[in-house]
Amino acid sequence: MTAKISRQKNILVSVVIGSDSDLPVMTEATKILEEFEIPHELFLTSAHRTPKRTAEFAEGAAKRGVKIIIVGAGAAAHLAGVIASQTPLPVIGVPIEATSLQGLDALLSTVQMPGGIPVATMAIGKAGAKNAALFAVRILAVENAALKAKLDGYIRKMADDIEKNQLKVGI
Amino acid sequence: MTAKISRQKNILVSVVIGSDSDLPVMTEATKILEEFEIPHELFLTSAHRTPKRTAEFAEGAAKRGVKIIIVGAGAAAHLAGVIASQTPLPVIGVPIEATSLQGLDALLSTVQMPGGIPVATMAIGKAGAKNAALFAVRILAVENAALKAKLDGYIRKMADDIEKNQLKVGI
Amino acid sequence: MTAKISRQKNILVSVVIGSDSDLPVMTEATKILEEFEIPHELFLTSAHRTPKRTAEFAEGAAKRGVKIIIVGAGAAAHLAGVIASQTPLPVIGVPIEATSLQGLDALLSTVQMPGGIPVATMAIGKAGAKNAALFAVRILAVENAALKAKLDGYIRKMADDIEKNQLKVGI
Amino acid sequence: MTAKISRQKNILVSVVIGSDSDLPVMTEATKILEEFEIPHELFLTSAHRTPKRTAEFAEGAAKRGVKIIIVGAGAAAHLAGVIASQTPLPVIGVPIEATSLQGLDALLSTVQMPGGIPVATMAIGKAGAKNAALFAVRILAVENAALKAKLDGYIRKMADDIEKNQLKVGI
Amino acid sequence: MTAKISRQKNILVSVVIGSDSDLPVMTEATKILEEFEIPHELFLTSAHRTPKRTAEFAEGAAKRGVKIIIVGAGAAAHLAGVIASQTPLPVIGVPIEATSLQGLDALLSTVQMPGGIPVATMAIGKAGAKNAALFAVRILAVENAALKAKLDGYIRKMADDIEKNQLKVGI
Amino acid sequence: MTAKISRQKNILVSVVIGSDSDLPVMTEATKILEEFEIPHELFLTSAHRTPKRTAEFAEGAAKRGVKIIIVGAGAAAHLAGVIASQTPLPVIGVPIEATSLQGLDALLSTVQMPGGIPVATMAIGKAGAKNAALFAVRILAVENAALKAKLDGYIRKMADDIEKNQLKVGI
Amino acid sequence: MTAKISRQKNILVSVVIGSDSDLPVMTEATKILEEFEIPHELFLTSAHRTPKRTAEFAEGAAKRGVKIIIVGAGAAAHLAGVIASQTPLPVIGVPIEATSLQGLDALLSTVQMPGGIPVATMAIGKAGAKNAALFAVRILAVENAALKAKLDGYIRKMADDIEKNQLKVGI
Amino acid sequence: MTAKISRQKNILVSVVIGSDSDLPVMTEATKILEEFEIPHELFLTSAHRTPKRTAEFAEGAAKRGVKIIIVGAGAAAHLAGVIASQTPLPVIGVPIEATSLQGLDALLSTVQMPGGIPVATMAIGKAGAKNAALFAVRILAVENAALKAKLDGYIRKMADDIEKNQLKVGI
Repeated sequence: MTAKISRQKNILVSVVIGSDSDLPVMTEATKILEEFEIPHELFLTSAHRTPKRTAEFAEGAAKRGVKIIIVGAGAAAHLAGVIASQTPLPVIGVPIEATSLQGLDALLSTVQMPGGIPVATMAIGKAGAKNAALFAVRILAVENAALKAKLDGYIRKMADDIEKNQLKVGI
Repeated sequence: MTAKISRQKNILVSVVIGSDSDLPVMTEATKILEEFEIPHELFLTSAHRTPKRTAEFAEGAAKRGVKIIIVGAGAAAHLAGVIASQTPLPVIGVPIEATSLQGLDALLSTVQMPGGIPVATMAIGKAGAKNAALFAVRILAVENAALKAKLDGYIRKMADDIEKNQLKVGI
Repeated sequence: MTAKISRQKNILVSVVIGSDSDLPVMTEATKILEEFEIPHELFLTSAHRTPKRTAEFAEGAAKRGVKIIIVGAGAAAHLAGVIASQTPLPVIGVPIEATSLQGLDALLSTVQMPGGIPVATMAIGKAGAKNAALFAVRILAVENAALKAKLDGYIRKMADDIEKNQLKVGI
Repeated sequence: MTAKISRQKNILVSVVIGSDSDLPVMTEATKILEEFEIPHELFLTSAHRTPKRTAEFAEGAAKRGVKIIIVGAGAAAHLAGVIASQTPLPVIGVPIEATSLQGLDALLSTVQMPGGIPVATMAIGKAGAKNAALFAVRILAVENAALKAKLDGYIRKMADDIEKNQLKVGI
Repeated sequence: MTAKISRQKNILVSVVIGSDSDLPVMTEATKILEEFEIPHELFLTSAHRTPKRTAEFAEGAAKRGVKIIIVGAGAAAHLAGVIASQTPLPVIGVPIEATSLQGLDALLSTVQMPGGIPVATMAIGKAGAKNAALFAVRILAVENAALKAKLDGYIRKMADDIEKNQLKVGI
Repeated sequence: MTAKISRQKNILVSVVIGSDSDLPVMTEATKILEEFEIPHELFLTSAHRTPKRTAEFAEGAAKRGVKIIIVGAGAAAHLAGVIASQTPLPVIGVPIEATSLQGLDALLSTVQMPGGIPVATMAIGKAGAKNAALFAVRILAVENAALKAKLDGYIRKMADDIEKNQLKVGI
Repeated sequence: MTAKISRQKNILVSVVIGSDSDLPVMTEATKILEEFEIPHELFLTSAHRTPKRTAEFAEGAAKRGVKIIIVGAGAAAHLAGVIASQTPLPVIGVPIEATSLQGLDALLSTVQMPGGIPVATMAIGKAGAKNAALFAVRILAVENAALKAKLDGYIRKMADDIEKNQLKVGI
Repeated sequence: MTAKISRQKNILVSVVIGSDSDLPVMTEATKILEEFEIPHELFLTSAHRTPKRTAEFAEGAAKRGVKIIIVGAGAAAHLAGVIASQTPLPVIGVPIEATSLQGLDALLSTVQMPGGIPVATMAIGKAGAKNAALFAVRILAVENAALKAKLDGYIRKMADDIEKNQLKVGI
């Protein structure tokens, strides 16, 4: 089944979405992973519509060498918690605004996990998707000096951009 | 495995809780089921700590003759949705106040299910647990004249109690 | 009066709306009922503007053979509760986003029923309307093997669609 | 039926509660009505458990000479709206904190009435119950000079009490 | 000063707005007052920008023969409470959605009045503005048989419209 | 009237409360003002029960030499805004938890002031009362070197306390 | 470093933004400062992306003669608190709507400061930005008669505009 | 300075609290770290009262060999974000209920980080503190087979406890 889930080898980060409508948000995560050249995959599975596919994915991820799982989901966003309950890997959750309640439902469904099974929750929407990937980079950089250097550079560039934008706003 | 889950036969309604701390709330459901003499069981399983036990329970329920599943859960209350995703039976969810957010997290996690997998959500807490059982009674009474008569009696008694209480409050 | 309410015979599910502006949301329910070939009707009545019409409808539904009532309403959404108080049938409520409060008012007005009179509440809006119908299907399928088979097919198709969409998102 | 509802004559304000547990809050209303010597009654009826009793009460109130109806209710507080839909009299609603949601459910269920049927909503709880009665006094005082004088005195006394309390807090 | 505030005589209902941007909402109130031929005025004053103008208006309203004041305001909507504190007349408040918080700020600022000074609060926005006027009609109709007849007709027409719309939605 | 409002001379900061029940919260402000030896007074007036007293106070404050006004109020907390509308002095508002809504009503009623009349809002409750006084100290310290030195000392002491507490928690 | 931060002399008010996307909101503040001819600067720094730049700015502001700092920030809006923790100057915070939560996140992140370090919080968005500048004017006007006269004129003009607009809305 | 911050060597996880009042919540984290025998420290520093101490800690953590930082904070909980902005290490935030708003303020202040600087947010309160430590364990276990085995055992034990508790609740 691993092959069906992904033909790519050496996947370090798996980005999971519950619906293809979550794609425009979660590409903020894959763009960061590409920028940092971290091997990753994009996997589509639903907590509710494909529970078996989700279980197979979660149970098999560590064996395939995946180190971190990022999950984006909206509404009663169970997917990150459901995956975290079936893997010992660190799971990062991104609440997505998919209903009239502006993502508050997804945020509470993702973050309020009971003691025992953690989901590391990011901000609602695109900022959260981007930060989920950056958090994965932070984890991987702890033991990877080259990645750490890239991360330092990324952080420096963010600071430099602020100083450049200062010129635009005046003074 | 059925035997392990329940030795009782002819269970019509299965009441599921995610933690034994939910018991004081969910006995409001079992009291109603006892009053209406509906064969039921109380099953403890967690969406996150025992996903396999939950899956086995959900997948096996219909085969054991269970007709309705009532699920109480708090915090990021995924249990009702997770069970509903693994059974074609009607699942009734009771959000339980288990965190500082007064049950709002459990309510949104239970009710905001995406299209495809419904969870019939009741009020937060004891009123919801009682109503979950009464809703199960309403479903079963549609095809059961004796139960329908009992339900009519129950509804009449609630009305009579209001009129009796009128005397207490005066006029 | 039954005739006035509906000329169709053998209605199993009655879909009730409080205003014709709720129609675009609630057709998500009727589309599912059509797909499952469940005889249904669409009934317009307001808890507040036509209380007598609502009472007549609710009191007469069981006698007409209706088995399940689905009610969509927005704002201070009393309609589902008001109907549930006048029938022993199972009533499913769909909160509709009809005010600036994004459906939170309709959700709380529908779900927070006091102990005694249950309303099975679905998600706010179109997902809730669709799920209301699917929940009705789940209830009816318990005693109807043909419908159960269709429901199983529907659930399988949802899962298959996820797997097909995987190809679109890549890997 | 009028006799059954109240033996008192010349009732001007009817205070309605949905449950005897609402009494401690709503006596804040009856205390004000007593202070202003406005003939009133305390009526117990539930929107959901006694819909017929509620309808009879609402439809008969104007004929009995009642001029204003005050309604206290908690949770999915439908009672004020349901009564307002069955009488042309002004209906004042008091949301009561009866669930874990601190009265927010009762507030939204009472105040967010759709266009056509108004409910004049007061603050959640005891302050609201007191103000409901004072609002009834304001309505009645428009055409009643003696009551107007009493109301003026009441308003003056509130102001005087502030000035007296100043001495307690110092300066 | 009365002349400056209004040249019209026999004003029964004064509709007050805190900003001309509230006009599109509050014309829902004036349209109803026109339909019921109730003499009314539209007065612009701000709790915060013109406190003296507001005080003069509030203190003089009863003397000018005004019987009911309707106030629409958004954001930290103090205007209804400020007017109610300076007149013994019944004051009806309409919270207006004027900030990013969807009118929740205006609702709580209007409805949560402390005990002593009531503001009768309606729904947020246009439905609330319409209902404020209908609530004024209900108050005035108590002592005015002709207005009562019109109100009964209005209520009947709302019911008839529902039945007519039934034909549109089908069955 | 100034004498009636305060016999103390050279008051720099006036602390205003809307009800004597707000005193336990607002003494957090007066304790800071005492610690910094800033001449202050405690004034009791209600936006709604004593509008004239409030207006007299607000209009007279600058003339009496008051430089900053701190206002604590709960529920539909209009007092800070009402005072700010009648004085050009800086007004600092402290929302107080006085209802079942945990101070959210007071926060929104205080902070969401429309453009034109600012109220500088602090946190809900005791932390906010303390910070209101510290904010007044910051304003006064800008032009007062001695006070600035005291403020610097206060800020240093807070930091030192953290380092001392470190010893208690261990490492 | 001062030169890098600003070449302008005699800056009295520093307006700080966390991102150039906050500019359209915060120009409401600079427009008021221009209208009152208060020397000011616009400074771009992020609490999270440029913590050193933020610290340098905050620590150096008083020495440069800045008297008041206005900070606009959205999302988890830490910037005002972070600056307030590194300067004894009065800091005014403007929560900006930058996420799906409509500015509620920014409001709570700005206003709920723990006791010890105050941030004077304004309304969410443009009204808050405008009021932040007007609050700075109020502070500066306490010791500046010319500015006080301008402020009085501004307040009078707001009142006059209301009276002029009255003519537009009619009566 | 490192010595002052911690004398312990080989600290892998640093648990940071903003106030000693947060200790009862955050010991849920240290208990888990002890159970898994992960070298850790408990560090007290405030984002607002000791910004320099916080900066020194954050900037020095990676050099000292710390691999993960867990931060608990309440109210306008800036501490996790402020630390994350000054270290490239992964930072896990635990929102603490420290105000009348039940931890909602701390949750939004912690989780709604703008894109660029991630904070991995856990549930409010004790469940979140426990899960923060378990999430740190998951990160460390990825590259540590012994720890992975312990984690697997911990997860199995949680499941076993559910099955044992089943016996208590009956069936």
